[in-house]
Amino acid sequence: MSKNKALITLDTRRGIFPGRFQPPHKGHGEVIKWALNRVDELIIAIGTAQESHTLQNPFTAGERIVMLKLMLSDLGIDYSRVYLIPVPDIFMNKVWVRYLEALTPKFHVAITRNPLVAQLFSDAGYEVMFPPSYNRDLYRSTYIRRLMIEGGNWKELLTPSVAKYIEYINGVGRLRLLLKGD
Amino acid sequence: MSKNKALITLDTRRGIFPGRFQPPHKGHGEVIKWALNRVDELIIAIGTAQESHTLQNPFTAGERIVMLKLMLSDLGIDYSRVYLIPVPDIFMNKVWVRYLEALTPKFHVAITRNPLVAQLFSDAGYEVMFPPSYNRDLYRSTYIRRLMIEGGNWKELLTPSVAKYIEYINGVGRLRLLLKGD
Amino acid sequence: MSKNKALITLDTRRGIFPGRFQPPHKGHGEVIKWALNRVDELIIAIGTAQESHTLQNPFTAGERIVMLKLMLSDLGIDYSRVYLIPVPDIFMNKVWVRYLEALTPKFHVAITRNPLVAQLFSDAGYEVMFPPSYNRDLYRSTYIRRLMIEGGNWKELLTPSVAKYIEYINGVGRLRLLLKGD
Amino acid sequence: MSKNKALITLDTRRGIFPGRFQPPHKGHGEVIKWALNRVDELIIAIGTAQESHTLQNPFTAGERIVMLKLMLSDLGIDYSRVYLIPVPDIFMNKVWVRYLEALTPKFHVAITRNPLVAQLFSDAGYEVMFPPSYNRDLYRSTYIRRLMIEGGNWKELLTPSVAKYIEYINGVGRLRLLLKGD
Amino acid sequence: MSKNKALITLDTRRGIFPGRFQPPHKGHGEVIKWALNRVDELIIAIGTAQESHTLQNPFTAGERIVMLKLMLSDLGIDYSRVYLIPVPDIFMNKVWVRYLEALTPKFHVAITRNPLVAQLFSDAGYEVMFPPSYNRDLYRSTYIRRLMIEGGNWKELLTPSVAKYIEYINGVGRLRLLLKGD
Amino acid sequence: MSKNKALITLDTRRGIFPGRFQPPHKGHGEVIKWALNRVDELIIAIGTAQESHTLQNPFTAGERIVMLKLMLSDLGIDYSRVYLIPVPDIFMNKVWVRYLEALTPKFHVAITRNPLVAQLFSDAGYEVMFPPSYNRDLYRSTYIRRLMIEGGNWKELLTPSVAKYIEYINGVGRLRLLLKGD
Repeated sequence: MSKNKALITLDTRRGIFPGRFQPPHKGHGEVIKWALNRVDELIIAIGTAQESHTLQNPFTAGERIVMLKLMLSDLGIDYSRVYLIPVPDIFMNKVWVRYLEALTPKFHVAITRNPLVAQLFSDAGYEVMFPPSYNRDLYRSTYIRRLMIEGGNWKELLTPSVAKYIEYINGVGRLRLLLKGD
Repeated sequence: MSKNKALITLDTRRGIFPGRFQPPHKGHGEVIKWALNRVDELIIAIGTAQESHTLQNPFTAGERIVMLKLMLSDLGIDYSRVYLIPVPDIFMNKVWVRYLEALTPKFHVAITRNPLVAQLFSDAGYEVMFPPSYNRDLYRSTYIRRLMIEGGNWKELLTPSVAKYIEYINGVGRLRLLLKGD
Repeated sequence: MSKNKALITLDTRRGIFPGRFQPPHKGHGEVIKWALNRVDELIIAIGTAQESHTLQNPFTAGERIVMLKLMLSDLGIDYSRVYLIPVPDIFMNKVWVRYLEALTPKFHVAITRNPLVAQLFSDAGYEVMFPPSYNRDLYRSTYIRRLMIEGGNWKELLTPSVAKYIEYINGVGRLRLLLKGD
Repeated sequence: MSKNKALITLDTRRGIFPGRFQPPHKGHGEVIKWALNRVDELIIAIGTAQESHTLQNPFTAGERIVMLKLMLSDLGIDYSRVYLIPVPDIFMNKVWVRYLEALTPKFHVAITRNPLVAQLFSDAGYEVMFPPSYNRDLYRSTYIRRLMIEGGNWKELLTPSVAKYIEYINGVGRLRLLLKGD
Repeated sequence: MSKNKALITLDTRRGIFPGRFQPPHKGHGEVIKWALNRVDELIIAIGTAQESHTLQNPFTAGERIVMLKLMLSDLGIDYSRVYLIPVPDIFMNKVWVRYLEALTPKFHVAITRNPLVAQLFSDAGYEVMFPPSYNRDLYRSTYIRRLMIEGGNWKELLTPSVAKYIEYINGVGRLRLLLKGD
Repeated sequence: MSKNKALITLDTRRGIFPGRFQPPHKGHGEVIKWALNRVDELIIAIGTAQESHTLQNPFTAGERIVMLKLMLSDLGIDYSRVYLIPVPDIFMNKVWVRYLEALTPKFHVAITRNPLVAQLFSDAGYEVMFPPSYNRDLYRSTYIRRLMIEGGNWKELLTPSVAKYIEYINGVGRLRLLLKGD
C-alpha cells in the first residue's frame, strides 16, 4: 500500500466510504483522513442521492457534494485523491455493492462501521476496514439535524465552511419547515 | 467572472458540461480547458450512467470517471476545479435539467454544442455557452468506437493515459464482443 | 387577473392545487371555489396516483377523479374551468414541481396550505397563494377515513354525491378490510 | 345507452380513447365526436405521457392536454363529458389495460383502430368499438410532424386554436431542433 | 376438478398461493398440501422478491426458492405439480393481480387467508379459497424471525432441511446483524 | 460432478441457462439435456420477463414457463431438477449477473453460447460452459417467429405440446396482429 500518492495510475489502490452525509460532520472528516492514510484514493459514495427535502434527507446530493468539498478544504485534505459520487438507491441490498461497482472507479477496500454494510461488502469479496469511532455521541448526522431543529449548537460539530454553507442555503429553516409539513 | 480561481466558496461560479464520454477524447479535453477559462469550477455530468457493455455505451460510469481523471492529469488540468458526476437516465427530457440540479452542485451556465441540450438548459433559465468545434470529424466518440472495432488508430484521438487504460481493461476486446453478441 | 372566464386561450391564467384527495371533502370544495375566484382555470393534481387499497390511500386515482367531478357538480362549480390530473409519485422532492410542469398545462400560481409544498413551488419561481383554513379540525381526509372505519358520521363532511359514490363502491368495507390486512 | 347526457351519475357509461396525440388533429376530433354519440362520457388517455422533446413525442403531456381542450372548444364539443388524462408508459403490454383502470374512471368500452390495442382491451374483457377511418392518409400525427419539419401545410390538418397554440409555443422550431440533435 | 394429476395439459387447473415466505414454515407446508388436494398444479408466488437483507425480508428470492423446494422434499410433496416464482413488488395494489397474470402460468383460483389479497383476486374475477388456519400463533414468519433473533426454538417450526439450510447460510447471524444495523 | 441426482441438498451443483425463450424450441431442449448431464440442477432464467405482446417478445413470462414445462415433459426431462424463473430486465448489464444471483438459487456455472453473456458471467467469477450448436440455422426463435408470421412450418421446430399450446393460445394470430399494429 502506498501512502500520500496523489497521481492516478493503473494500479491506484482505492477505498470506498459510503454514507448519506446529511450533513457531513467532523466525524466523517476524521474517517476520511484515516482512510487516506491507508489507500491512494478514496471514493465517497453519497447514498440516497435521489432524496432531499425530507426530515431524514434534507439536503440534495448536489448540496452534499458541495459540503464535502468545503469540508475537505477546511481540513486541508487533498481533493485530488477523492471522488465525490452521488448514488441513487436501488432498493436491492443483495445487488447494491455491484451497483456501486458500476457507478464508481474500481475499489479494493470498503471503509464502514455499519455492520450490515460491512457484511454486504464482505459477501461481495471485499476487504473491509473499520475506522475508529470518533465521538459517536456527538458526531452523528441524526443528532446534528435534531440540534438544528431545536436551536442547539450544531455548528461546532461541522467544519466552519460547511456550517456557513448550511446557513447560506438556510438549511435550518428548511428542516423546520419539513417538521411542520410532516 | 473570475478566472483561475481554484478555491470553492459560496459564490463560486460553475459551468456544467454534459456528455456520455464513451470514451472521453481530446476534443472533450479542449472543451474542458476552454470552459475552465470561463468559470471557476466545472461539473462534468456523465450521462446514461446506468448503461455499459452495449455498443453505444461500452464503458461503465466508473470507468468513464477514471478515464476523465486520467485525461485531466495528462492535460495538466487542475482536478480540484472539476466534479465528475455520474447521472443515470430518467427518460423525461422536460425534467432532465432539474434532475441535474438535484444531483450536482449549483451551476450557472451550461457548456454544450448539442442544440436540443442547449434548448433544454435555456428553457430552464440558464445561460448557454457554445464551445468552439475541435475537429469534430475526428473527435467523435462514435467514430472512435468504430476505429476500435475496425482496428484503426483510435489511440491518437485520446490522451495517452486514457488509451493505456482502455488497453488495460481490454476495451477493444469488449467492443468486438458486443458486436458479436448484437 | 380575469374572473369567471371559462374559455381557454393562450393567456389563460392557471392555478395548481395539489393533494391526495383520499377522499375529496367539503374543505377541498371551498378551496377550489376560492381559487376559481382568483384564476381562470384550476389544475387539480391528484398525487400518489399509483397507490390504492392501502390505509393511507384507499381509492384509485380514477375513483378520486370521479369523486372530484361529482363534488364539482354538487357545488355548482364549472367543470370546464378545471383539470383533474393524476400524478404518480417520483420520490424526488427537488424535481417534483418540474415533473408537474411536464404532466399538466402551464400554471402560474400554486394553491396550498402545506409549508413544504409551498416552499418547493416558491423555490421553483412560482407565486404561492395560501387559501383560508376551512374548519381543518373536521375537513381532513385522515380524520374522515378514521370516521369511516369507526362508523362515525363521515358523510356530512363530503358532498352528497361523493358520499353516495363511496357507498356505491363500498369504500367503507374496503377501508375496514385494509385495517384487517394491515 | 343514453346519448347527450352530460351529468355524471353512478351509472354513467364511459368510453376510453387512447392515443399519443402528438399532436391532436381533426381526425382525432372526428373520433371524439363519433364516440360521444355512443357513450355518456369519454376518457381521452394521453399515452407516453412521460416523454417530450423527442422526434416521436415532441410535446409534453401538459401541452397535449391544452391542445385537446382547445380542439374540443374549436369543435363545439362539450368538455364536461370528457376526461383528459395523462398516462405514463409502463412497458408491460399484458398489464397496460389494468393500469389504465387504476388511473382513469371506470370505463365500459374502448375506442380504437389499432389492432393490438383492440386485442388488449378485448383480452381484458372489454367491448371494443372501431371508429370509421377519417382520411387516414392526411390525419396522421407522424405525417403532420413531417409536414412541420419540411414546411408543409400542417395547419389545415389541425383545428385553428391548436395550430395557433403550436405556433405560440414554437412547436415547429422545437421539432427542427430535435432533428438536428438526433 | 381432478386430483393427483401430475401431468401438465392444456386444461390443467391451477391455484396461486402468494406470500413472502421469510422463511417458509410448516404452516405454509400445510396450506400447500391442502391446496394440492384441490387443484392440479400450484403456483407459489414469492412476493417482495427484490428485497433481502432487511429485518422484514432477510432472505433473497433465490434463497426462499431453495427453502421451499427443500420443504416440498421434506414433506413428500410432488415438486412436479408446483411452480416457485419470484415476484418483485410493483407498488400498485390495483394492478397487482394482473401483474401476477403476466409473470405466472394461467391460474384459476387464489389460495390466501389475507382479506385484502382475497379482495384483490375477487375484484379481478377469481375464485378465492380460504385454507384452514394451521396454528397461526406459532406458524407466522414474523414470530419465527423474532425467535431467531432472541435465540428461541425456531427450528421446530420449520421442516428439518429448511432449518439446516438457514444454518448453512448463517441466517440467524444475518438477522442479528440487521438488527444492529437498523 | 454428480449426474442424475434429483434430490436437492446443501451442495447441489447448479447451472444457469439464460434466454428469452420466445418460444422455447428443440435447440433449447438439447441444451437443457446437455446441461443436465453436467450439473445436478438447472436454473432456466427467462429474461425480459416483463415484456409481451411485441414482435420481439410475443409471449408473457407465464406462457413461456408453461411452454418450457411442456417441452420438458415432451422430452422426458426430469422437472424436479429444473427451476423456471422469470427475470424482468434491469437495463444495467454490469449488474445483471448479480441481479440473477438475488432472484435465483445459488449457481456455479453458466450455460450460454452468447459471447457477451459469457463475458458477463466470467467477469463475475463464474465458470462458463459453451453447449454445442444444435442446428442454429433452424433452431432460432427469431426464425421461428418469422415462420409463424409467414405461414411456414414452425411446428416441427418445437416439441409437439409446445406447438399445440401455441395454437391453443392463438400465438400465430397474436404475432400477425402485432405485425399490423407495428
